Amino acid sequence: MRADTRRMRAAVWYGARDVRIAEVDIPTPGRGEVLIKVAYCGICGSDLHEYVDGPHAIPVAKPHPASGVTAPLVLGHEFCGTVVALGSSVTDLTIGDRVAVEPNYRCGACPRCRAGEYNICRHFGFAGLMGNGGMAEYAAIPAYMAHRLPETVSLEQAALFEPASVALHALRRAGALPETVAVVGLGPVGLLTVRLAAERNVPRIVAVDVSPARLRRAAGLGATDLVDAGVGEGAGERICELTGGEGVDVAFEVVGSESALRTCLAATRRGGRVVLVGLAPQVSLDTFALVNNEQSIVASVGYRDTYPELIRLVAERGLDLTPVVTSTIALDALVPHGFEALLDGPGNQVKILVDPAAHRDRLDHLVRCAASAETATHTTSDRGRRC
Amino acid sequence: MRADTRRMRAAVWYGARDVRIAEVDIPTPGRGEVLIKVAYCGICGSDLHEYVDGPHAIPVAKPHPASGVTAPLVLGHEFCGTVVALGSSVTDLTIGDRVAVEPNYRCGACPRCRAGEYNICRHFGFAGLMGNGGMAEYAAIPAYMAHRLPETVSLEQAALFEPASVALHALRRAGALPETVAVVGLGPVGLLTVRLAAERNVPRIVAVDVSPARLRRAAGLGATDLVDAGVGEGAGERICELTGGEGVDVAFEVVGSESALRTCLAATRRGGRVVLVGLAPQVSLDTFALVNNEQSIVASVGYRDTYPELIRLVAERGLDLTPVVTSTIALDALVPHGFEALLDGPGNQVKILVDPAAHRDRLDHLVRCAASAETATHTTSDRGRRC
Repeated sequence: MRADTRRMRAAVWYGARDVRIAEVDIPTPGRGEVLIKVAYCGICGSDLHEYVDGPHAIPVAKPHPASGVTAPLVLGHEFCGTVVALGSSVTDLTIGDRVAVEPNYRCGACPRCRAGEYNICRHFGFAGLMGNGGMAEYAAIPAYMAHRLPETVSLEQAALFEPASVALHALRRAGALPETVAVVGLGPVGLLTVRLAAERNVPRIVAVDVSPARLRRAAGLGATDLVDAGVGEGAGERICELTGGEGVDVAFEVVGSESALRTCLAATRRGGRVVLVGLAPQVSLDTFALVNNEQSIVASVGYRDTYPELIRLVAERGLDLTPVVTSTIALDALVPHGFEALLDGPGNQVKILVDPAAHRDRLDHLVRCAASAETATHTTSDRGRRC
Repeated sequence: MRADTRRMRAAVWYGARDVRIAEVDIPTPGRGEVLIKVAYCGICGSDLHEYVDGPHAIPVAKPHPASGVTAPLVLGHEFCGTVVALGSSVTDLTIGDRVAVEPNYRCGACPRCRAGEYNICRHFGFAGLMGNGGMAEYAAIPAYMAHRLPETVSLEQAALFEPASVALHALRRAGALPETVAVVGLGPVGLLTVRLAAERNVPRIVAVDVSPARLRRAAGLGATDLVDAGVGEGAGERICELTGGEGVDVAFEVVGSESALRTCLAATRRGGRVVLVGLAPQVSLDTFALVNNEQSIVASVGYRDTYPELIRLVAERGLDLTPVVTSTIALDALVPHGFEALLDGPGNQVKILVDPAAHRDRLDHLVRCAASAETATHTTSDRGRRC
């Protein structure tokens, strides 16, 4: 905590196209909370949606039951940092602990929480969307959200645990380890799904997107086959052909569109499974074909119990998630070099991290561009950087 | 086999509204086949669809790859009987064996067959729809379709193994044994799903239909709660209320309609599963809600490896499937007292069995009406009969 002031800079959502880098009070950790100095906070597609035409998840009319907060609120749910203060009743964390933040509120009392499925808690929400988050110099979070990091796990890796958790949970929702998968949609979560499928040694990983740049990234992360859905028709059928006409065991819909769901169903074998990660609106579904092919559509939302496995994979198996990072920016650059960059050229940027400790006068210097993940391989743990 | 003739009577599908009780040659069992004298053959909704506005599954343009048959063909796939002749290479059946017929063709060579999932074989089909079936005095079937019955299993029970298999497979597709289920649609398969869920001691079984008569039948078969979907709105929400607002673990869609699917999704808890048995056409689906509730839609088609379990349940645990039988008719009565009776008053009839051995001159006498299943309970194994 800074000695000279109780104020900090934070990215505060006031409304659509109105995200302000504001000077606000450093929060005081309440009972059961810890204050962390934020190291990195990734920009998620959800943040972008809130920026473009929110509110979607952000509470504006009444406080969210889990956080008690309404907008304006501090954005950012993909964050990590160092514990700098403890609220009362916190016994299992210490000042100086480096932690990854699992930003989900949960009530602990509803039937789903009692069953351990806290990702579908009745009062489920995210810090950074339904409450104050991590696009700030400091954040106060419930201690249960903090996962202590071993020395061998960097904060940059930890900043990616949140989107990697979405991918890992989706993989778990695929059921028994598949032999063949298709990942349709290669945003950060899709690319991390490819990466984690490769980590699990899935023999055949078909990556599907309309962006050649993203397809090349997927190849670098472990995809065995690439299908450009933007070229010609029948992407689903082309995926089928790659598996001898049978179809893949599992297809991941990581776009959130009816056409991507259709591609997934066409790509999936009889008895196979489509894991629905993307948030499509209403879709039209051929249930006659679904039944006759005995396929399943299995939704996957958020994650649960994923952080310990990710910590283990990075610490013990050398998993490197950072090839999905395309740039790291200062907080003041959030709108022009974060949101607008992501809107400007889909495919050019994948994951942008915000470094809230960077000073605004060092803005230009701090807009770092990561080496293209196209050249990374999933065995490379020390990727190069260039501006 | 009759000594005096090589001819038999059979219900032959020629076209929609053109099912004839015809005199045809008794088939000769080929290599790997057996000839059975049919004891009973149930009328399925699929038969009714073929009668009303077929062909749907019946091959008319080119022979079905598994059977080599095109229409006209002998209907009926819910049958059982006694082995009366063996084709060559049949070693595991004997003349005189009483058998339940599992009427699915399978190639045995495709990836799904090799994985044991022969219900989704590439060349999947039913004897009695894609090939000649059991609404006849005799039927030649591949020996692999025949399951030998112990003495304690009656042929009347065995006649119900086919629809009971659909229900059992659907229950298996529900995954881990649920605590609470809803069965939406109480035709024969829905009622048998209720019955088998009760057999598995599922504590809460909510039966849902628009027909009060069918709801009463479900109560007799083990349903713990009844929801009349025809009265008022929000059947799904009413089912939820029965489970303290949480929703059921699993809902079975056994209607085949968009509204039934909606009811199921509304009735199912977060993280729960809708098992899709009914064949709806295109439906509109709110995938946004599906993902946020992390629900699954799991299709269930046909069945596999169900006959041995049904034989065991009837032989060893006293399972009685016959309360779903509402009448037993002669072959000649198929159209007027079978198809037309089912079309006339949904809810009055549930399962009608055809007894092909009955003579046409005894038709009136043979149209037996079973005691209403409304009065049966799932512990009653010896139901009364009345005309």
